[in-house]
Amino acid sequence: MNSHIEPVELQKAYRLINHGPTVLVSARHGGIDNVMAAAWCCGLDFAPPKLTVVLDKTAQTRELVEKSGSFVIQVPTVAQLQLTHEVGTRSRFTEPDKLVNAGVELFNIEGHDLPFVAGCSAWLACRLMVEPGNQEKYDLFIGEVVGAWADTRVFNNGHWNFEEADPAWRSLHYIAGGHFYAIGDALSADEGSKS
Amino acid sequence: MNSHIEPVELQKAYRLINHGPTVLVSARHGGIDNVMAAAWCCGLDFAPPKLTVVLDKTAQTRELVEKSGSFVIQVPTVAQLQLTHEVGTRSRFTEPDKLVNAGVELFNIEGHDLPFVAGCSAWLACRLMVEPGNQEKYDLFIGEVVGAWADTRVFNNGHWNFEEADPAWRSLHYIAGGHFYAIGDALSADEGSKS
Repeated sequence: MNSHIEPVELQKAYRLINHGPTVLVSARHGGIDNVMAAAWCCGLDFAPPKLTVVLDKTAQTRELVEKSGSFVIQVPTVAQLQLTHEVGTRSRFTEPDKLVNAGVELFNIEGHDLPFVAGCSAWLACRLMVEPGNQEKYDLFIGEVVGAWADTRVFNNGHWNFEEADPAWRSLHYIAGGHFYAIGDALSADEGSKS
Repeated sequence: MNSHIEPVELQKAYRLINHGPTVLVSARHGGIDNVMAAAWCCGLDFAPPKLTVVLDKTAQTRELVEKSGSFVIQVPTVAQLQLTHEVGTRSRFTEPDKLVNAGVELFNIEGHDLPFVAGCSAWLACRLMVEPGNQEKYDLFIGEVVGAWADTRVFNNGHWNFEEADPAWRSLHYIAGGHFYAIGDALSADEGSKS
C-alpha cells in the first residue's frame, strides 16, 4: 500500500463514486483473484453507505463475489485507461493470465481479505447484501461499504481535488466502443440563491 | 420541442447516461408535474434498455412516479447548473411554486403524457417496473426506457460530442454541498492491443 493512501470516513465514502465514474470490481475466492470494469455502479445510500453494481452472468468476477460475499469497487484513473478497457473486455474464463496481460498489480489492506488494484484513486471494500431476486433477474448486486480509502494526491479531507491534481488522476467515464471521457472542470452552484 | 431534438434508437439509449451524469427526474400525476435532481441514476440493461434511480421517500416526485407508473430521466447541462441544484434542494411539498422558482420550463413529446424539462441534452421516457421490495427497502426504482431523444447539438448519430459542442452543453456530475464537475476530455483506449 503506497504511503499516499489514507482511510476515508464511511459517511463520506459515497463521494468517491457520486460523480458516476466507471469503476473496477475485484473479488477473491478459493485462491482466485479477478478484476473487471463496470460502467454501471452507483450510490444507493449514505449511512450505512451502500452501492449497486451490475455484474453480467458471463463475468468470472461475479462468481467470486457470489461465493465470497465481498468485493472491492475502485476508481481507476486516466493513467489506467488501457488497463480499464482491457479488464473490461478480456475474460479470465478464456484467458487465465488476464490480470498479468492487462497490467494489473494487486495489493492488500490489513483486515480485508480482498484484492485491491494498485494505482487507482479510491477503493471501497463492500460486503454483499444478498438479494437473489435482483441478482438473478437484473444482474444487480448491492454492497454495503465497510471500508473506504483514497489516494490523498487526488482525494483529501473528504473532497476530490481533480482541479489541482495531475490530469492523469482524473476519473474515467465510459460511453461505448473504447470511448471514454475524463472528468472535467469543477463547478459550484450558488447556495444562497433560494428565495 | 425545439428543432434540434431527435429520437435516439433504443439500443443506443444507454449511452445517454453511461458516463454517470447527475440527472433530473420528472413525473406527472393528477394534474401535478414535478422535477427533482438525482445523482444516483444508472444503467441496468441494454435491450430492452433499463435503468435504476434512487428516489428518497421525502421526494414528491417519488409519489408521482409510484402513482403514474412512469417518469422521465433527463441529462442537464452546465448551463443548467443552478436549476439542477435548486430542483435538488427545494421541495414542492413545502414550496408549491418550486418549478417556477427554479426556472424550470416543461415541454411535451407526442405520445408521452410526461413533463420533459427544456434545455437538457437528452431525455429517456421510462415505464416503472414495479418492484415493491426494492422501492420500500432501498428507495430503488427500475425503469424500462420506452423512448429516448437527444439534442443533436451535443449528441448526434449515437455519439456524444462534448469535445466539439459549446462547453455549456457538458453534463454535470454532482459530488456534495453544491459542488459538481463537468464532463471533460474525450479519451479512446487502444482496441488493437489484445495479445
